[in-house]
This record gives sequence, C-alpha cells and structure tokens, in this order.
Amino acid sequence: MTYVPYFDAASSAPLHPVARQALLAALDEGWADPARLYREGRRARLLLDAAREAAADAVGVRPDELTFTSSGTRALHDGIAGALAGRRRAGRHLVHSAVEHSAVLHAAAAHEAAGGTVAEVPVDRAGRVAPGAYAAALRAAPGPTALACLQSANHEVGTRQPVAETAAECAEAGVPLLVDAAQSLAFGPVPGDWSLLTASAHKWGGPSGVGLLAVRKGVRFAPQGPADERESGRAPGFENIPAVVAAAASLRAVREEAAAEAERLRELVDRIRTRVPRLVPDVEVVGDPERRLPHLVTFSCLYVDGEALLHELDRAGFSVSSGSSCTSGTLTPSHVLRAMGVLSEGNVRVSLPLGTAEEDVERFLAVLPDVVRGVRGRLGAPERAEEATAASAGSASGDSGVSAGPGGSAGPGAGGPGDEEAEVVVDSLGKLCPIPVIELAKVIGEVPVGGLVTVLADDEAARLDIPAWCAMRGHAYEGERPADRGTAYRVRRRA
Amino acid sequence: MTYVPYFDAASSAPLHPVARQALLAALDEGWADPARLYREGRRARLLLDAAREAAADAVGVRPDELTFTSSGTRALHDGIAGALAGRRRAGRHLVHSAVEHSAVLHAAAAHEAAGGTVAEVPVDRAGRVAPGAYAAALRAAPGPTALACLQSANHEVGTRQPVAETAAECAEAGVPLLVDAAQSLAFGPVPGDWSLLTASAHKWGGPSGVGLLAVRKGVRFAPQGPADERESGRAPGFENIPAVVAAAASLRAVREEAAAEAERLRELVDRIRTRVPRLVPDVEVVGDPERRLPHLVTFSCLYVDGEALLHELDRAGFSVSSGSSCTSGTLTPSHVLRAMGVLSEGNVRVSLPLGTAEEDVERFLAVLPDVVRGVRGRLGAPERAEEATAASAGSASGDSGVSAGPGGSAGPGAGGPGDEEAEVVVDSLGKLCPIPVIELAKVIGEVPVGGLVTVLADDEAARLDIPAWCAMRGHAYEGERPADRGTAYRVRRRA
Repeated sequence: MTYVPYFDAASSAPLHPVARQALLAALDEGWADPARLYREGRRARLLLDAAREAAADAVGVRPDELTFTSSGTRALHDGIAGALAGRRRAGRHLVHSAVEHSAVLHAAAAHEAAGGTVAEVPVDRAGRVAPGAYAAALRAAPGPTALACLQSANHEVGTRQPVAETAAECAEAGVPLLVDAAQSLAFGPVPGDWSLLTASAHKWGGPSGVGLLAVRKGVRFAPQGPADERESGRAPGFENIPAVVAAAASLRAVREEAAAEAERLRELVDRIRTRVPRLVPDVEVVGDPERRLPHLVTFSCLYVDGEALLHELDRAGFSVSSGSSCTSGTLTPSHVLRAMGVLSEGNVRVSLPLGTAEEDVERFLAVLPDVVRGVRGRLGAPERAEEATAASAGSASGDSGVSAGPGGSAGPGAGGPGDEEAEVVVDSLGKLCPIPVIELAKVIGEVPVGGLVTVLADDEAARLDIPAWCAMRGHAYEGERPADRGTAYRVRRRA
Repeated sequence: MTYVPYFDAASSAPLHPVARQALLAALDEGWADPARLYREGRRARLLLDAAREAAADAVGVRPDELTFTSSGTRALHDGIAGALAGRRRAGRHLVHSAVEHSAVLHAAAAHEAAGGTVAEVPVDRAGRVAPGAYAAALRAAPGPTALACLQSANHEVGTRQPVAETAAECAEAGVPLLVDAAQSLAFGPVPGDWSLLTASAHKWGGPSGVGLLAVRKGVRFAPQGPADERESGRAPGFENIPAVVAAAASLRAVREEAAAEAERLRELVDRIRTRVPRLVPDVEVVGDPERRLPHLVTFSCLYVDGEALLHELDRAGFSVSSGSSCTSGTLTPSHVLRAMGVLSEGNVRVSLPLGTAEEDVERFLAVLPDVVRGVRGRLGAPERAEEATAASAGSASGDSGVSAGPGGSAGPGAGGPGDEEAEVVVDSLGKLCPIPVIELAKVIGEVPVGGLVTVLADDEAARLDIPAWCAMRGHAYEGERPADRGTAYRVRRRA
C-alpha cells in the first residue's frame, strides 16, 4: 500500500497487502475451471468455496446466499433486475432514495423504460432519508411495490442511512429491501432484516473485478439475461477465482483493521470538518456530522471551479474527487448534492484510506486555503467585503453583461410582467459554474435592500448553486422561470 | 507455468508468465479510477489505453472498436444483445451454427423468449459448417436477419470454421457476422470481413475476468441493460485494469510463441489422432483432421462411461474434459457431438497448452489403453469377438432385461404392429450411458442377420450413441419411436 496522500478511497482503494498476497497465491492454484473434476478444477473449487464462506461470514449471510459478480455495478444492475423480475407478479413499482449510486438510478431508468414505475424517496439537507420515509413511499405507491433500494451510507457525503429501520418498514409492508453496502462494508456488516445486499471489492482494498450480491433465502429472485450455470445462475461467465480469493481475504483483514482505524480516521475527518470552514471563507461542509462514515468528508467552496480546484490539489499532491459539474465529463452537478439542496460549486470529497497519516491530513489543511484563494483569484471572485457594498459595482460589471433598470434586457420571460421595482439583470448565458454565482455576488450590492437581481444562465449548476448562495448569504431566492434562452433565477437582496 | 500434464487448455489455460508479471506491475499502478483526473487516475488511464491498443492490434481492429468485458461469456451475451438491438428495425432473426458455445445458445434462447426468431445452421460429421450454408440460411430466413454468429473454431472438437467465406456471404446479404474467437485468438487474428468479435483472456493464458468485444465502425450496436459510462457504454462496471493489462500483454506474448508452437502441437495432436485408434479398440476420433486447431483433439470410446474415464485419467495424472453425458452435471451429451451425429460415450477432449512436453503426450498414449480397458471391464462391456456370435447371449442377458420373440415385452409402442420377424427387446430403462449400448452390443448376436433388436432406453445419450454404434459396427439403424416409457430404438443386424 502506498502512503502518498491519496484521499479518494471512496472511489477506489489501493490494493491491500493481504489482497495482493492472496491474489498471488491464488493465481497459481485458482486458474482452472471449478466445474471440472480433475485436480486443478478441484483445487479451484476449494478456493472458491473457501472465499465464499469467508465473504458470506463478513456479510452475515449463508454461503449459498452469496454470489460473486464482476463488479459492484453488475451486482446492482443484476440484483435489481433479478429482484424486480422475481416479484413481477406482485407489482412493477420500484422505490429508491434520491441519493443512491448512479448504478441504481440507471437500473431504475431501465426499469421505467421497460414499463415499470419508480419513486424517489427524498433526503434532508444532510443527505439522510427520514425514518418512516420508505413506509410513506410504499403507502403512496401507485400499486404494490416490487422492490425498495437504500444505500447503507452515501458515497459522496458519507451520511449513513437508517437501514435497519427502513428494512423493518419494508418487511412490515412485505417488500424486499436491497442495500447497496459498497461504501460501508469495510467497516462492518449491515444491520437489519434486509433482503438483498451488494458491494464492491475494490472499495475495501480488494482487487477490481469482484462485486458481491447476497440474496437471502426466501427472497424471490429471477436472474435476467441469458442463462448460465455459474454462480447459481446469478452471475454469468467464468469465475474469477484469484480475484475472489483476494477480495474475501482482504475484506476479513480490513474489517480487523477498521475496528481500530475507524476511530482514528473519524478524528482526522473531524479535524477537516471543523477546521476547513475556519481556514477557508465561504465554505459549506455537507453531510451528517454524526451519522456518517468514519473516513469521508465533503465540503463545497463558493466561487470556485471544481475542476480547477481538483487540478490544483493534484499539483499539491492530493488526490480527491468532486461532485461539481465539469469534473466528471458531464455538465451537471452530482445528483446527490442536488437532492440535498446544497452548494455544488467548488465541491471536494476527501475519503481517507486505512492507514492515512495524520501529517498528510495536516498538510492538506495547510495547503487548502492558498489553493482555494488562488482559484478564486483567477476567476475574479468577489471578496466578502466587496459583495456587501455597491461601491465595487463598476468593476464587477466588466464583462458580465449586467444591465440595470426595470425589466432589464432579459426578454419577456425574465422580469415579471408589470413589475416596476429596482432590478438588475445579469446575463450569464453560456458561462459555466461558478461564473453565474460570481456575477450574481458582484452585482447584489447594486440593488437596494429589497431590490431584485435576475440571473440568466444555462449552466445546470446555477439551479442548485444560486439558491444555495442565497441561503449562505441570507438573501431571498424567489425561484426560476424559463427565459428565451436558459433560465432566469430571481434573487431579492435582504441585507 | 506448470508442466504437470494438464491437457484441458481449451477450458482454461494456466496463467502465462508474462500475464503474471504484467498483472503484478499493474496491481501497483492500475488500481485507481481511470476516469479521475489526479495522478493515480491518469496512471490507470495510461495503462488502460496501452492495453487497449495492444489488444486491438492483436485482434486487428482500432482501439476505439475494442471493449474489455468481464468474461468471454459476457462479451457474447452483451455483444449478441447489443447487435440484435442495434438492428432491431432491420429484423429480429438470428442465425448461428449448431455447434456454437453454450453462451451463444443461451443468448439465442433469451432472444427467442423475447419474441425473436432463431435458426441453426447444421454442420457435417466433422463439425464443420459448409461454405454457402449461411447464405442459404439467410435466404431461408422468415424475414430479414439481424445477426449471424459463427465461431472461428469449435471448442470441443477443434474444427475450424469457414469464417472468411461466411463473413463474405453475410456481407453480401447485408447481415453483420459476430465471430466467437475464444478458441483461436491465441493462434492468430481472425481473417475476413466480420463485424463483431468476442474472446476470453483465460483461454490464452491471460487472467480470469477479461473478455474482449470488438465492434467494427459502422456496425449498428445498441448496448442493452442499464446505462453505464465506462467502456464506451458497452461493459458496465469499474474497469479491471490490472487484469486487462495482463490479458493484453499475454496475448501478444502467446501470439509470438504460438507461431513456433503451433506446428509442434499439431504434430503431437496428430500422434494422438493416429495412434489412439490403433491402441484402443472401438474408438472414433472426431473433428476435421486438417482444418483444425493445432492443439486440440477429441475422440470417443465405445462402451465407456465418460465420467469414469475422466476419473481414471485424473488418477493417472492427466486432466482432460469430456462431452459425454454425466460429466458436467447434466444428463445430456454435448450439443456439439449431437449436432455432428458422432458417438458421445467415453468422450475425451485433449487440448494441449503451449509448452506441452512430448513425453507427456507419449505417456498419455501409454496409459490410455489400460485405462479404457479397466473401465470397460468394470462395466461388463463386450469384447469384439463376443458381440459377433450368438454363443455369449446367455451370459449377456444376465441382468439386462432381454426378452426374445415377436413383439417382445416392450409394450405396444416398441415393436411395430403386425411385425412377425425375429426380434429381441432390451429393456435398458433407467440405465445411463453407456449401458444401453453395451446391452445392445451383447444381444445383437442373438438375432439372425436381418433380425431386429429394439432397445428401450430413457437416457438421452442413447439417441446419439445407438445410431453411432450402428454406423461403427455396420448394422442398420431403423429409427426411434416413443414407447410407454422412454424411447424404443430399432436396430437391424446386418453382419
């Protein structure tokens, strides 16, 4: 394992030494077809059976309830499809939280495209599903619900979900619950009376190419796609035994370490949660402060471009990820941040691998303020003082297409009809996050308290970040309207 | 690589030293998410891109035409589904040969279950598709054909298929051809103007967990199942970069070795093809003697139980596989042997890994006769001499339920109505391969030349092996009829 500060364990963890060791041994013993009766096949079968027992024990199921898939994504895709098909006679409705992994959302979209129905359970500003929310969603369903899905903990903000309570609600309603345990399995088994569970080995330091799909006895399950005799018919293709052996061995090893490491990592994360808002102005730390994964923290920095921030942190030696738009090849901010209603610009997720050195976290905290200041400077972001006064309005309107006066230049859709109040319109069309918010901040001082600023923007992040900026700054967000081009966002100055 | 005589390379080859070395290196460099922009992600991306270039070069496609899947089975399942969906507006008919890998048959069955139509192209007694056969199948199709599938070489008998000719026939008809190259890719690229190609790394000494799916530009392809952004949307789930790197490196290494090894292995296989029928009585060597894979040979031994034969060969130190019934957890003989119309009992497939030592092949040839003799002895199989005379009829009918005379005891379905000729009925109901054929052989001497033996059997292998026995022995097979229980097979003594 490398101790260079890699802070994106939630994306993929470096291979654990135990995984490496087990993989090497199993490469020599586990390459043959375990369905064959000759010695190489029998050896492979023994390894596969032992790995299944160890992994099942760590998950808390029987070995015959556990299938090895080729990835966590495949476990989710195939687990959801199989559970929905198994319950097809009961109904075609699927319920999941708004902050599930994209693999769940994609499986849900495929289900809808095939004629099924889907409902999303909302989360609070901390990213958490309320106890009782699934019970309510099941009651409100258009018909009997075939399957409910809930992650054990969120992959972007670390918030733990009320899985045991939700499982009880689902059991009460006779609906199976599938738990995506990808982020939490390293830290312990998932409690409660859930029906199906998925996970991914490379998240706990196991090798790539191994997912887990547990289906408890008595749960109706009908594998979809072409038949295949391997892995109880639930995961087609030749078994990847060396990787499976390494996955099981490292899960066991990581569990033992995690018992001690969890508290240490939790304390390191608490430092980041507490000190980043003190060190860096205009930061929102997101996710539940208590009911959370020990090793993961997420915050968003106003007036910062997520991609530039990641790039600068990478140059400073820190590998982190971001839910901001433009950082993942898409132009939309993360659906998790959107569902939470929190700021998405300048978003940073720090997830510490087991063994992270304290001094690396301290160095991160030492480096971050300058990095953020540098990005903000290059983007021409306003200083706090500047926003508050109209004095700087002239400089702020440099190339930001600001026009003042009633109605402005925004066309019929933007200013409300017959609305004669003081208004400034900012044309941020064609500009990407965080520019629309920066331009809004620069002109807010131009209108009197009680006056209106309308921002025209076509960047998707504006929909999330303008209301979030208003909440952080104490201004009133008055909603959006479609404009001739893009969307008009209306903000009333309150201070 | 181990040089203990493992003779089942067509099932899975031991990990090649180059694969092992590449895997070890890539475990340290390739565990991160290649979609990330930080240094670990960029390193992973570089490895993935280099592996794709190397593998694409070996396949003969452009890198952007090649997708890494999690197995050869997944490549076939998803490749067939994607190609069928991409051509859905053209038609819903699928054409494949009768001797494709079961993954193709399973994908075809899923297509039929979803409302599509499927046609099988027959093969000759050598397991080979006739040139022109696909053109004929496309002409005979109930509507426009969406996709045709043909293996480059058969996995059970080694026969090479006329891929280039078939690709030309398909191109002429405007139908894409998918080639399953799993068995041949180690020995060279697949010639011809095919549209899609699949393969599996563990067949060439690469690691488990890697398949290839090539889709040439211009081929309509619509990936099925939930969306996923990885691997051009064609293979969901986190990339298995260490395994992919090892797969590409070993394919290149194996190709270089194969150029020299192919001739040596071909000569070793020729020894087996030539000498087994001399060393062991009542053996049928199957598969095309010339147009074949260099390293693979299959033969079937009359009056032998495939599972017992495999077990005895394993005890003697040889790992081989079998297409006989009862050896793979199913009670039906291999669909390949069935489609060829050859004997399935006592079936042995020998497939030599690169580097197989000559003395191991010689030792196999030295051991085989005694092993077969032992199995035959325990089953009470007839000697050649015994069959030919009626003298041994008494002993043969010991517990084999033989009854003589017109009509026999087989019930109305067995003997033909009003059929007063000399007939013996053998009741082999409830007995598994090779017992029905052994019992037939033991009583054939009881009827005069021109007389009839009816075998009542409910073992699926009898349907294939009784006609095959007749062909080997020069008797006339007169067809089957449903009986009260099982099936009545009618054999007329000719010599």
